[in-house]
Parts: sequence; structure tokens; C-alpha cells
Amino acid sequence: MTDPALIDELKTLVEPGKVLTDADSLNTYGKDWTKQYAPAPSAIVFPKTIEQVQAIVRWANERKIALVPSGGRTGLSAAAVAANGEVVVSFDYMNQILEFNEMDRTAVCQPGVVTAQLQQFAEDKGLYYPVDFASAGSSQIGGNIGTNAGGIKVIRYGMTRNWVAGLKVVTGKGDLLELNRDLIKNATGYDLRQLFIGAEGTLGFVVEATMRLERQPTNLTALVLGTPDFDSIMPVLHAFQDKLDLTAFEFFSDKALAKVLGRGDVPAPFETSCPFYALLEFEATTDERADQALATFEHCVEQGWVLDGVMSQSEQQLQNLWKLREYISETISHWTPYKNDISVTIAKVPAFLKEIDAIVGEHYPDFEIVWFGHIGDGNLHLNILKPDAMDKDEFFGKCATVNKWVFETVQKYNGSISAEHGVGMTKRDYLEYSRSPVEIEYMKAVKAAFDPNGIMNPGKIFAV
Amino acid sequence: MTDPALIDELKTLVEPGKVLTDADSLNTYGKDWTKQYAPAPSAIVFPKTIEQVQAIVRWANERKIALVPSGGRTGLSAAAVAANGEVVVSFDYMNQILEFNEMDRTAVCQPGVVTAQLQQFAEDKGLYYPVDFASAGSSQIGGNIGTNAGGIKVIRYGMTRNWVAGLKVVTGKGDLLELNRDLIKNATGYDLRQLFIGAEGTLGFVVEATMRLERQPTNLTALVLGTPDFDSIMPVLHAFQDKLDLTAFEFFSDKALAKVLGRGDVPAPFETSCPFYALLEFEATTDERADQALATFEHCVEQGWVLDGVMSQSEQQLQNLWKLREYISETISHWTPYKNDISVTIAKVPAFLKEIDAIVGEHYPDFEIVWFGHIGDGNLHLNILKPDAMDKDEFFGKCATVNKWVFETVQKYNGSISAEHGVGMTKRDYLEYSRSPVEIEYMKAVKAAFDPNGIMNPGKIFAV
Repeated sequence: MTDPALIDELKTLVEPGKVLTDADSLNTYGKDWTKQYAPAPSAIVFPKTIEQVQAIVRWANERKIALVPSGGRTGLSAAAVAANGEVVVSFDYMNQILEFNEMDRTAVCQPGVVTAQLQQFAEDKGLYYPVDFASAGSSQIGGNIGTNAGGIKVIRYGMTRNWVAGLKVVTGKGDLLELNRDLIKNATGYDLRQLFIGAEGTLGFVVEATMRLERQPTNLTALVLGTPDFDSIMPVLHAFQDKLDLTAFEFFSDKALAKVLGRGDVPAPFETSCPFYALLEFEATTDERADQALATFEHCVEQGWVLDGVMSQSEQQLQNLWKLREYISETISHWTPYKNDISVTIAKVPAFLKEIDAIVGEHYPDFEIVWFGHIGDGNLHLNILKPDAMDKDEFFGKCATVNKWVFETVQKYNGSISAEHGVGMTKRDYLEYSRSPVEIEYMKAVKAAFDPNGIMNPGKIFAV
Repeated sequence: MTDPALIDELKTLVEPGKVLTDADSLNTYGKDWTKQYAPAPSAIVFPKTIEQVQAIVRWANERKIALVPSGGRTGLSAAAVAANGEVVVSFDYMNQILEFNEMDRTAVCQPGVVTAQLQQFAEDKGLYYPVDFASAGSSQIGGNIGTNAGGIKVIRYGMTRNWVAGLKVVTGKGDLLELNRDLIKNATGYDLRQLFIGAEGTLGFVVEATMRLERQPTNLTALVLGTPDFDSIMPVLHAFQDKLDLTAFEFFSDKALAKVLGRGDVPAPFETSCPFYALLEFEATTDERADQALATFEHCVEQGWVLDGVMSQSEQQLQNLWKLREYISETISHWTPYKNDISVTIAKVPAFLKEIDAIVGEHYPDFEIVWFGHIGDGNLHLNILKPDAMDKDEFFGKCATVNKWVFETVQKYNGSISAEHGVGMTKRDYLEYSRSPVEIEYMKAVKAAFDPNGIMNPGKIFAV
């Protein structure tokens, strides 16, 4: 769409100045954190009201123009990339928390509210918004809902899905639906709210969301434990889960730790060097609870599952232990990693991880694999680092082959090719490794019901 | 369908003897706990395998025969009633727990597993299945999923939806879908699993479900508190929720209590008589936690929100306090109550309750209203007792008028006309009080995608 007459029409639907077509804006708003697609939108439009969003969608239906929703653009699957002349609908100007309900512990958010903004709002009210992840400082609630964002506290608090009390959406036909009315119990037919969570904007736009808040956690305390092998991490998880409600259970390999310690700004957790590390967190609400954690730690040492460990005694120590895990992604970005975000059921994690290690090691012995992830929920981040000597194109070429092996292994283990990053364009052609062809047919039928003209984020999840 | 040739065809699809057409069976399997529809199925079929279920659905598509799913038949909305010559598909012979996964804390259930059977199974494994309600002894997991069953622990554990890790369903077209593969994190497009939860069998049949289990609660402790008015219950809820993770927060009126005490087999909680009572429960994991509860109780008394109260000191006392709440439904059934199961957001509960009280009181001053419910999640059970002197038909005639007022008030408060009992046939004609006409159109489009011939439980949720 480069027809200036259409751009002029679009301008009549929003406030003056709220359609941008300059090269900088097209480039900025046309992409997310994935870098492999060249942004090429026709225009960026910034609605300020639900009515304006409806007007844009109705106009796009009439003119058969593709729309791409745009939030914080922190996605890792290119779901918010506009590479084919689409109009990008940015929610940057719909970024207010409209309402707070103390008794229900809910906050009514416009889609452009930034995750950290909601977290801070909750804290100011003496409450807690528990969905947290690396991009919380710029990701937006609408995007979180579109990808059903997860992160580091899922073991205790679940995904974004759990925190959506109600949704207002504009469907691909331009209809405004008010879904679930913020109720806890509502057994009046299909819960369409659930369809829009994780739909990556392919059914419609989230234009308002009532998010639940939780009581603040008390005295969060972390342990970092070193294990003699990966298999030992599972009985450790089991032992702690038996005694405590964990708020996190993460893991990382010695290679991941070495990279982070190499920065020089984070202290080592302890001296013993171990092949794998677990980071777990719980609420030390009472001394008894902390003692229970220590006793379980000792039990794990006696069983030979843990070689060494440390428990945070202050907020500062808690922060430092978390840095060991949180800094990994940023630190390894220096090595141009091939990344994959996969999941299996928890029991299958050790065998699955070993199988992938073996396949990659056999074919590419010079590749360094860095594993980390949310082991408590079966979600592994596989990172293969580019050997310094290898050319970027050659590396990514080889990784494309690795990709196929990884996804075949995921399929064999009945896992997910995208645990929390979505499908977008990057996983679109691999969807059948996690969803059967007949399931995909039903998904397309659902899409057709909400977006019969196929104008909502086309080419995402499914090929056009 | 009375054509004997069709019954003969049906018989070829299952094991010998697994199609029943005798009057007793038709009468028994043709109805649920709602009594206002005369059961009139053509046959009852008992599949034993997923393949048999698929064969039945494919046959029904060819022959255009309506199917009704049948579980424990404890529903209260006639969703499992076959009143129009349908074939009832009973899951009584698909009632096994097939698999247990300790690390993932999941149990793979056939749809006919009884709720209490899963609860007991979990207990035997040192775990806990937290969805609990009056009919747990006969309701089945498939039916729980079909209605997204709630109950008394929703404030802490959520609805059945929260506990479904994976689903196998046979759609209305006869396709077998394996939904979500029991994963915690799976961002691969629309979560179709969510559509089937609460769909009342109108999209397809649940043929297997992987249910999550939880750690067992520790030292459950209940308080019953008497309040001077209904409004005081809300700050009490708020005060306790600030300090404790409540596992239940129920309420009942003096009239409800009087009926239960009238039985003579449950002791009064305390002597002070109060217009309203709250029953709350928490895990007294430590003495400190119990002390916190007592301190909050005292704070509530000082504020004038609570007149008297008692806290359980033993398992026996815990049971006795719960009987005050749990016996209500059974006890008042003697008065042929008109029942309604409605919800609003928590903050709106006091105003909503008063408005309904006023409407009924003004028009029918001789009607006795008994309120109870799950106040912690906004779910109220409204019960109007039939005056002894009034004829049953006259009473239900007047209640039909009340129904309209109640639903108009629900709509005004943006609430749900069915909090946890589903729509079925009893609420079908009132659906627009809780879902907009355009939303209902999308629901029908979704239905058409999964059940194009309309053979799956027709006439439930929507009119045929």
C-alpha cells in the first residue's frame, strides 16, 4: 500500500499527526527484537481510543489492508514485524491505567501500558503483578496478552493468561467484544477471552485488559545450588517442592555461569565449580520456613544431588544471585547465539536435554552450547554460540540444520517448539512439529470466524 | 430416532451389551439433577475407547443424529438432559486413571473418573486435587471440564480450568485432537483446550484429560465470624486477605444458619446471633500464622465488623464449622427453593445483594430469601423458599417473574447469570443478559467450526 489517497483516508480516522510515514518511523515501528526481517510497513497509526481502533479495522476491511499490532516490540518471533507494506497499529498512546479496584485487586489497563508500569502501580497499591521477564521495562500489556508472556515466576504464578480478568477486543471484523466482564466465575458458554490470549493479534486487537494483582510476596529468599550433573537437578526440584511453595526454579550450565562471571561485575555464588546450577526462590515468611529450606538443602547434599550451595541473607544477596541467571541472555548476545525456546513436560527434561546435546555435539563438535531456563516449568532456552572463527552466514546456515533436529526431538518428546516466545514468522513453518495438521485446520477455521478477510497480522502463526 | 435399524447400526460400534434402550436406562441416563425436563433419549451408548467415541460421532454425522454427553449427571442447568430423542453417550466405562507423573504432578484421567476418585488418588500419592464441591462423590471429570466446575476452594485454587494440563477431545466432526500435550508453557497459537473447557459438550467430547495435582494443604483451619450486616463482610475479607492466603471465604445468612441448626445434628458456632456469617479457611502452617489470624479477628471486632467468632482447634471442629455451610443446600431443598447461581465482581456484591433483596421483598414480602455462597469470588447462591401455604405451580410462576428481575439486575451490574452451573437449557434463553448478541454470534461461528452438522448436544447453550 503506497497509494497516498489511502494514507489520507487513514489520517481522517485518528487525531492530526497520528499517522507517520517517515523512513525512521517505518523502520522503528516495523520491527521487533528479531532482526532477520527487513521492516517495510506503509504507515504507522496511533489510535487513542477504542472507537479509533474500530474505525481503523473497519477501514482496513473495506480496503483489504493488512494490519500489524505493535506494542513494546520486544517479541522474539517476529509477530510484530511489518515486512510487507502493512499498516502498523501502535498502542503507544493508549498507555493509561484507567481504574483500580482494591476489593477485587484488579487494574484496568489500556493495551500500551508497559509491564514495569503495571508492576510499579501494583507496588504503590501494596500489591504485586507477578508476571516478570527480561523485557518488562518496555514490553506492553497488549503484547504480553498476545503472546501469553511467561517468564521467571511461572512455577508459582502461571502465565499472563492467569492474570487476565477481562478483555475488551476489537475483532478482525471491527466488532468490540467485552469478554468475561472481569468475573472470577462465569459459566456462560465459550470463554472467548482465552482465544485472544496468545493469538498474536491474528484474531483482533486487545484494546483494554483488566489485570489481576496479587498480595506482595514476603521476604523472598533465593538459593543457588551446584549439582554434579543435570539429572540431579530433578530430585532437588522435587525435594524442595515437597516442602515449600517455590516462586522460581531456574537452572543454568557452568558455561552460562562462566560467561556471566567473565563480566567481572557479579560475584561467584561459591567456590566449588559444578557442571549445573539451580536457582530457586521461596517466601521465607517465617524463620521456620527458612530452616526448612536449609534442612532440605542439607538433605540434598547428603543424597549427593548437591555439591555446594548458598542462601541469600539479604535483599542485596538476593539480587546478586538473580543476576547470575538474569545476565545470561544479555552476556551471551556477544557470541551471536542461535536461540531456541522449547519445552517438554518436566519429567522428560533430562533425557530431552541430553539427546539434543548429543545430536549437536556429534555433528558440530566445535559449537558451544549454553543451556539455561525455567526448569520448574519444563522450559529450556537452548543457545548455541558462534565459534569466533566461523563466518556468520556459515554459522546460521548450519544452525538451520540444527533447527530441524531440535524440532524433530521436540516432536518426539511431545513438546513445544515455542514455549513462551510465540510463533510469529520465525516458527510459522515449523508449527506442525507441535500442532497436528488437523488441529491447525481448526485453528484456521477459528481465525476465519474472527477475521474473515484475513487482515489481522497476516502471515503470523500461519502462512498467508 | 426410534428406527430400530439405526440402533442396530449403533450396536456394531461398541462392545456387545453396551447400547441400552430399556425404559429404566433411558429415564436414568436421560436426565441430570435438574428436574423440569422429561427425559426422552433414543438410546444410551457406553463406549470404552477413544476409537469407539470417534466411531459414534462419525456415525452420528452421517445419520444426522444428535448426541448428548453424560457424566455423573449432577448438573444443574440440564446440559446433560436428553429430552428430544438424542443418543446419550455415557462415559461410565471410561473411568480409569491411566497414568501418574510424580515429577509433573499430573494424573491422566479418562472422562468418567469421578471427582472424589481423583481426590482420593491424589491423596494416596501425597498430593491434592483442589476442585471440590457438593457433588464430588458422583460428578465426573469430563463433566467438570464441560462446565468448568468451581466450588468452595476457587478463591485459592481457581476453577477446573486451572487444573487441566492437557485434553484429548473428539470434535463434532469426529477428529481426535490432542490439545496442549500437558505442557506448562506452550506458545504455539490458539489454545483450543480452553474452548472445550466450559463448552458443555457442544463442540465435542472430552475423551481424556491430564489433570494437575497440588501439594496437600497443611493444617487447614477455619473461622466462622458473625457480622452486624452484610456490608461488614467485605472489609473482613479484605483484612484477612491482606494477611493470609485464604483457601476459602464463604458466607451465609442467619436464615440459612437457622435452617441448618434446625436439623439438630450440627452445633451452633457461638451464642451471639448475627444477621450474616463468614466462614474462612487458611493453612495454619505455623503458630505464627494462626496468631496472625487471631490478631486479624480481634482487629475486625475492634472495627465493629465482627460481633462474635470462633476458630477451629481440631480437625473435628473444622469439619463441624464446614457443615454449617455445606449442609445448607441439602437442608433447604425441603422448601422447594427457587435457586439461582449468579456472580458479580467482588466490590459490587453488597449493593447487588441489597438490590435483589429489595426487589423480591417489595413484590413478594411473603417469600423467604436464603443467601449463601462463595463471597470471596463474587459468586452468590440466591434461594427463595416456597411459603408452605403456596401451591407449587403458583410459586414457580411467580419465580419466573423474579427470574427476569434478577437477570436484569445481573446485567445492570455487569455480572454473570450463571457463575458455575453452566447454561444448558435452563439459562439458554437468558444468555443475552451476560453475553452481547454479537458475542453470541461469534460463539455460534466457533461452534460451527467444530460441529458443522450441529450434532453435539444441540439446544444447549444456544437454541437449535
